[in-house]
Formats: sequence, structure tokens, C-alpha cells
Amino acid sequence: MSATKQIRIALIGYQFMGKAHSNAYRQLTKFFPEIGIEPVLQVLCGRTEDKVKAAAVKFGFAEYETDWRKVIARDDIDLVDIVTPGDSHVEIAIEAAKAGKMVFCEKPLASTVAKAGAMQDAVAENNVPNAVCFNYRGVPAVALAKKMIENGDLGRIYHWRSVYLQDWIVDPNFPIVWRLQGDIAGSGAHGDLIAHSIDMARYLMGEITEVSGMMDTFVKQRPILAEIDDRLGGKASDQMGEVTVDDSSIFLARFESGAVGTFEATRMAAGRKNHNKFEINGSKGSIVFNMERMNELEYYNHEDPDDRKGFRVIQTTDGSHPYTGNYWPAGHIIGYEHTFINLIRDMLVAFTEGKEFHPNFADGLACQKVLDAVVTSSETRSWQKI
Amino acid sequence: MSATKQIRIALIGYQFMGKAHSNAYRQLTKFFPEIGIEPVLQVLCGRTEDKVKAAAVKFGFAEYETDWRKVIARDDIDLVDIVTPGDSHVEIAIEAAKAGKMVFCEKPLASTVAKAGAMQDAVAENNVPNAVCFNYRGVPAVALAKKMIENGDLGRIYHWRSVYLQDWIVDPNFPIVWRLQGDIAGSGAHGDLIAHSIDMARYLMGEITEVSGMMDTFVKQRPILAEIDDRLGGKASDQMGEVTVDDSSIFLARFESGAVGTFEATRMAAGRKNHNKFEINGSKGSIVFNMERMNELEYYNHEDPDDRKGFRVIQTTDGSHPYTGNYWPAGHIIGYEHTFINLIRDMLVAFTEGKEFHPNFADGLACQKVLDAVVTSSETRSWQKI
Amino acid sequence: MSATKQIRIALIGYQFMGKAHSNAYRQLTKFFPEIGIEPVLQVLCGRTEDKVKAAAVKFGFAEYETDWRKVIARDDIDLVDIVTPGDSHVEIAIEAAKAGKMVFCEKPLASTVAKAGAMQDAVAENNVPNAVCFNYRGVPAVALAKKMIENGDLGRIYHWRSVYLQDWIVDPNFPIVWRLQGDIAGSGAHGDLIAHSIDMARYLMGEITEVSGMMDTFVKQRPILAEIDDRLGGKASDQMGEVTVDDSSIFLARFESGAVGTFEATRMAAGRKNHNKFEINGSKGSIVFNMERMNELEYYNHEDPDDRKGFRVIQTTDGSHPYTGNYWPAGHIIGYEHTFINLIRDMLVAFTEGKEFHPNFADGLACQKVLDAVVTSSETRSWQKI
Amino acid sequence: MSATKQIRIALIGYQFMGKAHSNAYRQLTKFFPEIGIEPVLQVLCGRTEDKVKAAAVKFGFAEYETDWRKVIARDDIDLVDIVTPGDSHVEIAIEAAKAGKMVFCEKPLASTVAKAGAMQDAVAENNVPNAVCFNYRGVPAVALAKKMIENGDLGRIYHWRSVYLQDWIVDPNFPIVWRLQGDIAGSGAHGDLIAHSIDMARYLMGEITEVSGMMDTFVKQRPILAEIDDRLGGKASDQMGEVTVDDSSIFLARFESGAVGTFEATRMAAGRKNHNKFEINGSKGSIVFNMERMNELEYYNHEDPDDRKGFRVIQTTDGSHPYTGNYWPAGHIIGYEHTFINLIRDMLVAFTEGKEFHPNFADGLACQKVLDAVVTSSETRSWQKI
Repeated sequence: MSATKQIRIALIGYQFMGKAHSNAYRQLTKFFPEIGIEPVLQVLCGRTEDKVKAAAVKFGFAEYETDWRKVIARDDIDLVDIVTPGDSHVEIAIEAAKAGKMVFCEKPLASTVAKAGAMQDAVAENNVPNAVCFNYRGVPAVALAKKMIENGDLGRIYHWRSVYLQDWIVDPNFPIVWRLQGDIAGSGAHGDLIAHSIDMARYLMGEITEVSGMMDTFVKQRPILAEIDDRLGGKASDQMGEVTVDDSSIFLARFESGAVGTFEATRMAAGRKNHNKFEINGSKGSIVFNMERMNELEYYNHEDPDDRKGFRVIQTTDGSHPYTGNYWPAGHIIGYEHTFINLIRDMLVAFTEGKEFHPNFADGLACQKVLDAVVTSSETRSWQKI
Repeated sequence: MSATKQIRIALIGYQFMGKAHSNAYRQLTKFFPEIGIEPVLQVLCGRTEDKVKAAAVKFGFAEYETDWRKVIARDDIDLVDIVTPGDSHVEIAIEAAKAGKMVFCEKPLASTVAKAGAMQDAVAENNVPNAVCFNYRGVPAVALAKKMIENGDLGRIYHWRSVYLQDWIVDPNFPIVWRLQGDIAGSGAHGDLIAHSIDMARYLMGEITEVSGMMDTFVKQRPILAEIDDRLGGKASDQMGEVTVDDSSIFLARFESGAVGTFEATRMAAGRKNHNKFEINGSKGSIVFNMERMNELEYYNHEDPDDRKGFRVIQTTDGSHPYTGNYWPAGHIIGYEHTFINLIRDMLVAFTEGKEFHPNFADGLACQKVLDAVVTSSETRSWQKI
Repeated sequence: MSATKQIRIALIGYQFMGKAHSNAYRQLTKFFPEIGIEPVLQVLCGRTEDKVKAAAVKFGFAEYETDWRKVIARDDIDLVDIVTPGDSHVEIAIEAAKAGKMVFCEKPLASTVAKAGAMQDAVAENNVPNAVCFNYRGVPAVALAKKMIENGDLGRIYHWRSVYLQDWIVDPNFPIVWRLQGDIAGSGAHGDLIAHSIDMARYLMGEITEVSGMMDTFVKQRPILAEIDDRLGGKASDQMGEVTVDDSSIFLARFESGAVGTFEATRMAAGRKNHNKFEINGSKGSIVFNMERMNELEYYNHEDPDDRKGFRVIQTTDGSHPYTGNYWPAGHIIGYEHTFINLIRDMLVAFTEGKEFHPNFADGLACQKVLDAVVTSSETRSWQKI
Repeated sequence: MSATKQIRIALIGYQFMGKAHSNAYRQLTKFFPEIGIEPVLQVLCGRTEDKVKAAAVKFGFAEYETDWRKVIARDDIDLVDIVTPGDSHVEIAIEAAKAGKMVFCEKPLASTVAKAGAMQDAVAENNVPNAVCFNYRGVPAVALAKKMIENGDLGRIYHWRSVYLQDWIVDPNFPIVWRLQGDIAGSGAHGDLIAHSIDMARYLMGEITEVSGMMDTFVKQRPILAEIDDRLGGKASDQMGEVTVDDSSIFLARFESGAVGTFEATRMAAGRKNHNKFEINGSKGSIVFNMERMNELEYYNHEDPDDRKGFRVIQTTDGSHPYTGNYWPAGHIIGYEHTFINLIRDMLVAFTEGKEFHPNFADGLACQKVLDAVVTSSETRSWQKI
């Protein structure tokens, strides 16, 4: 194994995304040994010592640290991975870039185009490999969709139609976790969920040129949080506070290609758990994807014989499908966590080979421009060009 | 319209099946005018005068009659359609055949092979056109399946797998309607439901050569019926009686082709309403059909490219599909009642053209042989050859 | 049957909708005899004598006529049913109202609010019973949804989300039938499809107060029509012409209740046949409906125990469901044509009892206001209040 | 972490199951740290040195060994995990038991009841903790089903209906891997697939008392294997050989409870990948599970209000569901590999606490009795009592 290249990781943050990222680093060599890359879990960083210490043990990090600046200053770190709440991304990412580290940042990149732009400038000026964690690009079914579209299998594309529906805050007594606080999270369903849909649309459909949006907060008062857990939720206190993010974000879009699109995200759709779904209609066929059944891609081939046409459910677990040959036999499904392994696989291969990787900070910035345009559109009640 | 050929119908029986058959006759000229055949609803026959009189008006018959022998004796009747409970089929059908009438009989043809054989002898000796109402052959998706199999699209066929599940007697207080009385109905789920599956299997797969079966009555005592309705049910009295038919019938089968099959029917599957489902697996592909979604046929083409394989849901409502060009535009579904219109369309065309029609009494007899073999198998706990 | 009230029908138009309406009148007494109303198919009216004559025989009308004014002038007509292309609705409906007839008109009521308003004025001034054929209100699953919402079972409603997707013009060589001609049809997917969604939303959610829309024609040149058929299509000539309606119409909406909505209709979604689907999310639950599986309603009860929550597929074919007790036993599905029987049942009962019926011309007008607002919004690229 | 109990693992075998088991051991502490148990990957054992050496690195074992007897003789091994082809289970397991090791064995336990009985005797006599890897008991949806049944939520149970369908050998040129060799594998779909269904049925339904079976080999000649891979397949040579196992196994069963069951397994069902599906119908409700959508359980509650009844799709990813609170937020699915983590979690907790664990060797033996009875039934064409 002397040929294996080690990449030493510093992970900043240790909640839900910290768990997902560290799992991916650990599992990478087990499922993709042939790439010859070994991420080393060097140091986990968080503000609260006892918690970060426990998390470091749980996640398998060699060390922990409470000051991210110290981490970035270390020579034995190759890659800084930022999974903190959104408001701190900009400062950490810029410092990491200045220190010459590879930088991997959770989405959304920042809470404004200005901040995302500063981050993109920093990685460009310092010429450091960079990536943003739009992990759904790592879904085999999505990679198959990308391949089909690039191959022209859908023909001229007319429609994009996406919803990202969840229901974890339908209960009006769900407490104000940081994801419901505008100063920390930037926005609600908007930056958390629809950002994923925007990246997916840019990936598969190309650039969005203009939008008309509508953002809403249906439940404006909720209990203040007592204690957070690592499953998005937490315990409510008995005091009420103001919700300062959107519950729901919806917009119409036009693509550079001439196609039209609808986007919707909400955390108030009872029964929808992680219903990140999109449909694309083209002159030669259509595809449908839903993250809740992420091992499947629905495909309609308009060129099938007339009496044999129908949406087929492709189980994307065959050896012929992207990524899945490295996991289990056909029909033996993978899960949410594998999207991170796949994305990180591609990222580290690109970083190691010195190739441009997508989604990178430029993609994060492009996504942010759409997010900001939707906010402006919603506030000004007008179409906004990107 | 001088070219239209009239066929004068006498319908014996006026419950659920009477409603379905008379509807089909009425609708035939509306949806299939091009065949130039007009069924005339001449006379409806039933034992209880006030009820048959009311039904004749409701169904659109010109006349009613309480003695089926008188009906058969009439010169102005071309076709005798028998939808009475199973125990009376044999006598009526034989008399109708002797009178030279076309004979159309509900399934199962009879309660034993001996009776079904006598019926088949009668139609053969008198050389009268004859048919048995396995109406599911009139489903567009089933006709498409037949076409695909004949075309070799599924290759060598290995497996038949059918279930016919209902739940209308799950409630132990559901009363003993005639369908739960052995002396009238012959059997329970066996003759009522699995008979349909056997006919479907014979139609699509060829002959069955041997069976091993198991029949059960889970709820042996139920309330005696007070009053029947036309939706399979009725009102319970406060007296209990013996259930003399099976609740459930299951068997393994071998086909002449070498394929193997499983058959199951039950009226005790909570949540299944008219879940008449089958799956066929061959070397080149598979198909799945479920009567509850009768406008769809699932199809897997094993010869699709590796990364594009999947069960597709064909909406069999296109103009290219059997029958459906005569109804509504694609996607505008038809229902249960249209299976009767389609089957009667084919039957009357064949009768008029003097061609052999299937399913005929010979098919009903062949089905009965399998039904009887399963009963014997269940009683003797042994494989039975057909 | 002396108590049966006859209503004599004049049907103006005999294409796809003519077939659907006349079928419904014929079948009404067969499935709903207990209402004591018998529609009499008195006269069918169309411009081309040989065609209307043939259609009258096919549909079962006693007479035919080529001049609709003569029809309206007759004393032996109680109800004028208008199923002509959209541009002629206004004149016929107003004359029928002036003549004191009951008026039943296909949707969309007219091509502009002004015309629809004139129609509404006419029925109001002449105090005639009136209805518009938003037939999807006659779907049992939709009626169940209405009952659930009125019952409060979904709680406070946050989201409406509808798509009405078809693919019959995906082929760029599909000819310019009247539904693709602006001067006759008024609009494309907009008035044809999204009008249904608007009515459904108004029925279930209440009034829409403002919209932001986007309408597109992707394929602007198509072959001129040679000959129409009765399944929406026809034969293409070898000359090209201009498509003067939209292929696709999409809009965001706000409801009076505070809920938000998305609406999309297109005829360019490969694989979607009659995919008229909506989802509603409320604080206590969600429902989903899709016309392609019109015998089912998906329902999520947020108040189920935590580990038992899930979208259930209700087969709306039980005797306990709206309308279906009059058809077939549970699980034996009905089809597209029965939506017309059900709507006409309700309409004729209301007309006979002198009660206000919905959807009536006021509903058609309200729908038209939304349709017009979307057109204006799309043209001016601005939110429009209704 | 001083409180963490280490359990030192020797894994015998390193193909598909070796990969699955070692992954589960590695991941256990990451997802279930609260149990305080750490499996230590001490030694991996296999016959071919270069391959086992490479696999040890890949899987994360400290050492490798080529002689399983040496491994069992070591003092620093607590648990022997046997994932070799079926023919070697008996010898290894008995030696491990004699050495006082905890024994964990892949299913089916052995190729005959006699061998399985000897294994069970060995673990009983030596009083060692033992388990058999029926990993599907570790599926959250299955654990939920178990809980519901124990709770009486399905009432009196009438029907079990299972299929385990795959298609990886539909191609007649698929080579004879060890799973197609009777002397190594014991049987084909029978021991490989239907064994899982039998265990599942015993787990959820109780004991099976008699069976009538039918086993078939449709493709009797196949190419001899050139080289195996770790996804069930391999490369074909150009020589043909005899297939000495079944392609398909089907049987009828009666349960001690009075319920009836059907079981089917095949590797020849085109389009079915890992279609391990079962349905249970009881007097109060029904459930359906399919491993291809293993994060879902379908549930029909017969006691819901009449017009609200329907099969609901429970996404078993909520914190309230078994196991899933330790993984990701609701709607973020897990995959095939997690079934092993969950089962091993329960096993190691029980072993550590000195409690009886199921499925253990007694369960493996009970399963084997049914497997053998089906073989005998198929050969003698008779019902066999267990």
C-alpha cells in the first residue's frame, strides 16, 4: 500500500453533517481502494470541548481542537472541511484558502452572493482545490441522469420540475434550532433545500437566467430551543421566539437553453420526509428522481414502440451504473450516506490529479446568485435576472 | 344502418353480473359501431317477479319473464346469456343449446367436471356458438400481454405467479350470501376467483398438467343472510350458519411447457379489493398485471441496455393498444365494465362470422378440470394430473 | 316509472366531448335510477350534415340539426349542452339563456373574462339553471378530498401543488388541430388543462388572490391539419402553419386563506398522458390525487402514531365513498367517462330541485379571471391580482 | 472509553459476505457507540494467501491467516465468524464451539439437517453464544413488523405469501460459480434465498408444520467458471458443465397457528434484483415488505374508518422506528449493509449480557428442517411434516 496517497483531513463542525462527512472519509478506502487515496481523520474541531472530544472518539478522529484558526495553521493538514452552521463558512474558508489548504465546504456556500464571491475569490487567488458539498451529485441515479442527458437521450429539454419537501417542522411546537435562525442559517428551506435543487438543475439543465419567486413563513412564533440533537431536531424550552427564516420557497425559472422550470421547497409538507424530487421532460424522453427512493431512476423513452411506452423504474444498483459496482450486488441498495462517499471519491481523485472539480466554489457562487435573486424577487415581487 | 345485424338477447339472472352484462350490450354499439352488430335487450329472466320487473326497467330490457324455459322456447331470442348462481348453469345451458341458441355462460361453467362436460357435449352436439364469461380476457393490458407472448417478446417462459385477493368477508359477521353456500356456488374463492386465474394462465401460458393444492375455510360459522344487495354483500340476520365453501384456495402447478406456477385466491386478505394480479417471467422479459390498476401493464425488457433496464408501466390507453382506440384519448382510463364490452364485442363478431371463439365451453371445461383436480389434491394431499 | 322526470337534451357539438356527454346522459338512469331523472337525447347539433347525422345515430339521439339557433328555438328542449370549440360558447350560451333553457357548457367557459362575464350575466338575468363542465369534480376521490377538507381533516392548509401534464403534441409533426389555434381555442394547455386545475383548486382551497405566470410555445411551427379524429388528434397535411396557442402554462399563486400554490400545465411532457395531479399539505395531513389513477386517493394522516405514519392509497371504490356505491363492488374500478355521469347526476338533481349548482357559470367566470390574470402576468412579467 | 468492551473477531472467508460482515464490525461503534462494545478486526482467514492478504488490508483486519484451525486455536480471538461457502460451515463451527468461541455463521447453517444438528449440538454442549446471519431480521421495517404482530395489530393471521426473486442467472451463459455447485452450496435458490424467507416466516408467523414443494433447474448446462468476482458473478470459460443446484424452489406451507403460506424463490425472474418480498394478512390488517425498498413497510389497518382505509407506505426512517434513530434524519435512507450492523449490534449486546440471542443455531437448524422437508417433498411429490 506504499502507493496510497494520504490526505489529512481537518473537519470543522461535528453535528449531522460532521457525522456524514467523517463516515464518508472512513469508508472511502473500503469501497474504493483502487483509487489509492486514504483520507486520514487528523483533527476534529468544535467550540465546546467536551462535546468535540466525545465526537472525535465517536467519529474516529486522532485529535480534537476548539480553535479553528489553530487547525488551519497546522502543517499536517491537507484539507479543511467546513460543516459548521452557514454564518461561519466565509471566514473559515477564506483563512483555509490563504493557508493553501484544499477547501471543502458544506452548502449553501454562504448566506449572500457577496460572501460567496469573497470565498470564490480566495480559493482562486490562492489557487487551492475547492469543492462545495452538493452531495446529491453523488447519487448513482443522478449520475446516470447526467450521462443520459449528455448523451442526448432526452433530446431537446423543455421542462424542469422540482420539489424538495420535508415535514420536520409541521408541528408548531418544534423549537427554533439554528436552521430556523436567519442570522446563523441565512435562510430556511431556501438555502437548506432549494439550494440542492438549484445545483441539481444547473448540473443537469445548465444555467438559470431569470426567476420569479415567493417565500413564506407560515408559523412565525415557535418555542426557543433548549437542547439540540444530531437528527435536525432538539428539545423545546417553554419560551417562545421569532422564526427568522422561510418555511417555504417557490420560484419559476427560465434556463439559458429556453427550457422552463419550477422549484419548490418546504419544511411544511406533512408526510414528506426527504422528498427531493425532480422531473425533466425532453423531446425524446423524460426522467424522474426522488431521493426517498434514491436507488431508482424513472425513465420514459419516447422512442420505444408505441404500445410499449411507459415510465420504467431503473434500479440503479447494477454494475453498469455509476459507483454501484463498488458496493453490493444488484438490488442490494445503498443509502444516504453513500452519496457523500461517492462525491468525496470524485473530489479527492480530482484534487489528487490536479483537475478541476465540480461542484466547486464557483458552482456554490452560481447557486448563491440564484438564491439571492429569488429572495429579491420575492421581496420586490418582480422577475429577477441572474 | 340497414347493414347492422341484430342479435336478440335473453339474459337469465339480474344481480351483479346481470348489471354488468346488460350494460355491455347497451354500450356495444356506442363504442364499437363499426362492427355492425346490435345486441337487442329482448327479455330479462328471474324467479321473483317484482324484482325482475324492476331490473328489466333499470337495465333497459323490453320484457321480463320468470320462467327460463319459456324464454328459451321463444323464437325471437338468438342468444341466451346465463348469469344465475352456479348450480343452475348446467340445466339452462343444455336446454338453450338444444333449442339452437347461442349460449353465453358466466364462469365457472359448472360446479364439477361432469356437469361442465355435459354442457360442452350439448353445445357440440347442437353445434351452437358458445362462450364462457372470463371477462378479464377483455382487458386491454391482458390482450397486450397475449400479443407480446405470442410474439415471443418474453422468450422461454419459466414462471407464472398469480394471486387473486379480496377482503369482502374478512369481517366474521359478514353474512352467508349464496357465494358462501357450497350447494349453490359450488365453491368459494376457488370457483369464484381462482377460476379467473386459471383461465388467464391457460390463455397466456398454455395447458396445466398437474397441481398440488390446499383449500381452507378460516371462518366456519357466519350469520345467515337476511337480504342480498347487488354489490356482493347483504344484511346479516341474527342466526348463525355453516360456511360450506372455501375462504382460500392455493396451488402449485406445472405447465405443459415446463414452466412452473403458483396460484392463490382468498377472500380474507385485508386491504385487497379486487387484487387479481399475475406475473410472468421469461428469458427475455417479464410482465405484471393487477386488475386494480387494469389500465396498466408492467413490462421488463431483458434486452434493454444494461443501465436502462427496469419495469416500465405501460398505460394501455393508447390508440395502438387493443380496444382502447374505441374509447377515449390516451390516459383517459376505462373501468371494470369495459372488460365485458370488449369480450362481448369479440364474441359477437366471432359468432356472426361463424368463427370459433375463445373462451368457449371447451375452455370452461378445461378450467373446471383444473379446479376439480385442485379439490381432489387438497382432499387427498397429493399431486393430481389434469 | 311514472314518477321519472324527463329532461330533454340538445347537444351542440359532437367530437370528443360530445361522445363523453351523450354517454353520460345515456348511462345516468342505469346507474342512478333512484334520482328519478331521465335525460332524453332529443337532438344533436353540428354544422356538417353527414357527420352530425352519423354521430346522432352513434350517440343515440332521436334527431339531428345543423343550425344551433333552430335548436334553441324549439319548445321540446329543456337543456342546451354546449361542447363546441371554445370560440362559439358565448353566443350559443347567451341565446340559450335568453330562450330560458338550462345551460350546460364545456370549459373553459369562454376565451376572455369579458365573454365569460357576458355569459354569466345572461344566465343571471334570465334566471336559468347553469353549469360548466369541470368534470373532475365528479371523480369519487376528489369528492372524498372535498369532504375531508371540509371536515377539517387536513387542518390549516399551507400548500397546493398541481401539474396537468400531457404529451400528445411532443411530436413536432403533430398537426394544428383546433386546440392549437388561438382564434378558436382561445389558448392551449392554459385554457384546456390548467383551467381544470384552477377549478379544482378553487373547489378545494378557496379563492386565488394573485398570480405570477409564464406561458410558452416551444414548437412554433407545425403541419396544418388535414383531417381531425375524435381522440384529440388527426392527420397532418404537408403544409406548415403557425401555432397560436401556448404549449405550456405555469404560475405561482396565493390563496385568500394564506396558502401558496403552484400550477403547471403542458402538452409537452413525454410519458404523461392525462397526468392531472395535485397535492395538498395541511397541518394535520396531506392528500395526493392523479387522474391517471383516478380510483385512488393518497392520504397522509399526521395524527397517526409516529411509527405508523405513511401515505395510504385509498381505493375509492367502496360503498362508503361518494358515487361508487352505484357502480360496482369494491376494487372494480370506474373510468374517465363516469366523471361525467357523476357530475351530470349532481347537476340534474340540483336543476330539478331548484338548488344552486356548482360548478356553475359564476365558477366558470371566476376560473376565467384567473386564466386571464395569468396571461397578463406572463405578458407583463408581473404579479397580477385577481 | 475504558468502559468499552472489546470483542476480537476472526472472520473466516472474504468474498461478498466477508465484505458485508467486516463493514458491519467497523461501523458498529460509529453508529451505536452507546452500547459500549467494540468489535476488533483481529484476523481474516482464507485459503489463498495473496487474496486474503489483500482483503485483510481492504477490510481493515490487523492480520491474515490461511489455516482456519490455527485461527480457532488462538487465545486472542473471542468470536469466530464463518462466511465461507456452505460446505465448510459444519467443520469450522464445531471446532470453534469446542474451542469455546462465540460462533456466528452465515446462512444456511449447513446443507442438511444432520450437519446443522451437529452444529447445534456443538454449541449447546460447549455452551457458547451462537448466531446465524439471517440479516434481514436487522431491517428496521421487519423489526417494526415484528413489533406490530406481537402487539396484535394484525389480529388473527390467515396468510403468509413470500417471494424471493432474482435474475442474475437468467442469461444461460452465466458461469457455474460456487453458488451453482451442489457439492459446495448444498442447493441453489433454495438454500440461498428461500432460507431467508423461511427464517422471516418463522420469526413473524411461528413454526411451519408441513410443506408441499417443487424444485426445478431450468437451465441444466452452463459454462464453467473462469474467475469469480465479489458481486455474485464471474467470468465464463469456454467449457460447459452441469448445474447441480435448483434455479427455483416453491412450496406451500401450513403453520402451527393454522395460517397458510406460499413460498417461492428463483434466480430466473427477469427484472427482479433482490426482490425479497412478503405479505401477511390478518383479521385486523395486512403488511407488505420488499427488500428492494427496504426503508418502507406497507400497512393496511382494517380498523381505519371505512372511507379512509388503504395501504400506507411507512417510511421506516423515523426516530420512533427500530434502529433508525442511530443513523440519519427521517427520510434519509439506509441500505443493505446496515442490516448487518443492526443484527450484529443485537447479537453482540446479547452475547455480552449473556442473554439468548435469535436467530441462533437452533433457528438455523429449524430452518434447515424446513429446507430438507421441501427437498424431500419435491423428490417424493408428497406433503412432508416438519
